[in-house]
Amino acid sequence: MKSVTEQLLKLMSNWMGSFSGAYNVREDGACVGRQSTDNIKIESKLDGKPGLDIHILSGAKGETVSIPACVTHGDVDDLVYNDFYVGEGAEVTIVAGCGVHTENGEPARHNGIHRFFLSKNAKVKYVEKHVGTGSGQGIRSIDPVTEAILDEGAVLEMDTSQIGGVDRTDRRTRAKLAAGAKLLIRERLLTEKEQQAKTEFEVEMNGEGAATDLVSRSVARGNSHQAYRSRIVGNAPCSGHSECDALIADHGAVDAAPELTANHGDAALIHEAAIGKIAGEQILKLRTLGLTEEEAEAKIVEGFLS
Amino acid sequence: MKSVTEQLLKLMSNWMGSFSGAYNVREDGACVGRQSTDNIKIESKLDGKPGLDIHILSGAKGETVSIPACVTHGDVDDLVYNDFYVGEGAEVTIVAGCGVHTENGEPARHNGIHRFFLSKNAKVKYVEKHVGTGSGQGIRSIDPVTEAILDEGAVLEMDTSQIGGVDRTDRRTRAKLAAGAKLLIRERLLTEKEQQAKTEFEVEMNGEGAATDLVSRSVARGNSHQAYRSRIVGNAPCSGHSECDALIADHGAVDAAPELTANHGDAALIHEAAIGKIAGEQILKLRTLGLTEEEAEAKIVEGFLS
Repeated sequence: MKSVTEQLLKLMSNWMGSFSGAYNVREDGACVGRQSTDNIKIESKLDGKPGLDIHILSGAKGETVSIPACVTHGDVDDLVYNDFYVGEGAEVTIVAGCGVHTENGEPARHNGIHRFFLSKNAKVKYVEKHVGTGSGQGIRSIDPVTEAILDEGAVLEMDTSQIGGVDRTDRRTRAKLAAGAKLLIRERLLTEKEQQAKTEFEVEMNGEGAATDLVSRSVARGNSHQAYRSRIVGNAPCSGHSECDALIADHGAVDAAPELTANHGDAALIHEAAIGKIAGEQILKLRTLGLTEEEAEAKIVEGFLS
Repeated sequence: MKSVTEQLLKLMSNWMGSFSGAYNVREDGACVGRQSTDNIKIESKLDGKPGLDIHILSGAKGETVSIPACVTHGDVDDLVYNDFYVGEGAEVTIVAGCGVHTENGEPARHNGIHRFFLSKNAKVKYVEKHVGTGSGQGIRSIDPVTEAILDEGAVLEMDTSQIGGVDRTDRRTRAKLAAGAKLLIRERLLTEKEQQAKTEFEVEMNGEGAATDLVSRSVARGNSHQAYRSRIVGNAPCSGHSECDALIADHGAVDAAPELTANHGDAALIHEAAIGKIAGEQILKLRTLGLTEEEAEAKIVEGFLS
């Protein structure tokens, strides 16, 4: 494992010199470490596509599977397909961080296509941190595609964040929920300089009692640009809530377009969005406590994204 | 003036057997009554297009101009271009109702393209009621296009409603606001049976202190379908708020897609949307007061749209 990979792992995953439980470490498109457990089987895809088939058996309770992916230098365009098959009633945490690093003018890109198939009453917590590092001028891109199919009573909780250094990101998440299934998404995005971020959610609720809650918090600084799209579709008695809060500073720009589609009389859908700059009073308050304006702003942004 | 026109005028305008102030009555594409005043000049377009040029002079204060349009029978497809030029500091109310009536299987359609040019500090209240009547199976359509250019400090308040009987409507409103200009929109829409309604707002705020507030309330009953689109763009220090509340009953369906675009660090934009059915408790409360379920629902819808 390269030292750049080790540094990225520290930033974006639960790596502490090693992983506990099942894991697979991807470095510049190759596997540099893998471990399965009794209940979690990680295997390379048999159909020739790059990526993994991960079978999580019903017996898995409280286990963690880590699948970090790192791009350690420019001129790498990594594409990976990872499929998760989660057994009935299993309860697991999946940690899927991604780091891209370039020290030269060549671009570094990771494009991860993740599919989740949750059986009845399965519960998955999915944690994803994205980070870009290195002093090179090459564009750092992370373009994740997430598809989730939730069977009856399944719960998927996604906690995703892009914590800095990623120049371009195009994030697409699609989910279909059966009766009683729940999808909770917490997204945090920070862009600065000339960075651009696109986020798109589409959630279809097809069974009675399905529920979704999407919360996106973002900060656009410098000359960065963010575009947020979401669509919640209620085809059954169900409830959906989405919230998109963005702070803009400097010459940041944000475009938010959330869509609600109620195709059933008992679909209850709510959306809220707010875009604005950091309130002057907040800065002033922290400055009276001895912080500089920059420190005060950094503190507020940190609190907002935490 | 035909008796159908008189009936439509009662439903959708401020007609009391006659109009006070400036007016033009359009019936099946022709003018059947017109009056200008000292401060409000109504003239047929000179460029050959159907419609009016309406010049409202700076001296107009507290005056009303009424321009109702009626389609009284099937097999009429009425297209009209009305342009309003409102002088600096003028303060007027414009009443622009529209009614379509058919007693046979032929469609009746009115397509009104209205442009508003508000000079500095002009204040306009625009009231528009749309209604469809008659027992014919022909499709009743009203497709209004509204474009507004607001100069510094101008205020446009739009109060629009579709109170029933319109089978198809495609409503497009576009506005550009200079510094200190304000646009307030209150829209109320009721659809039932197989009716379809599309609403689209686009507001661009280009000057410091511009503000907009869009509030849309709608009820979709029967098998009706509504699609709501809005886009608020902040290109300057400005504030924007939009709110879209929809009640669905029976097999009604609603699609709401509001978009906020902040291109300036001092643009503060907020949106809220809620789609749901009438709360059971509300119905229950009114039923304990002696109303039937249908009466209770009608009461709630009336309150919601008022």
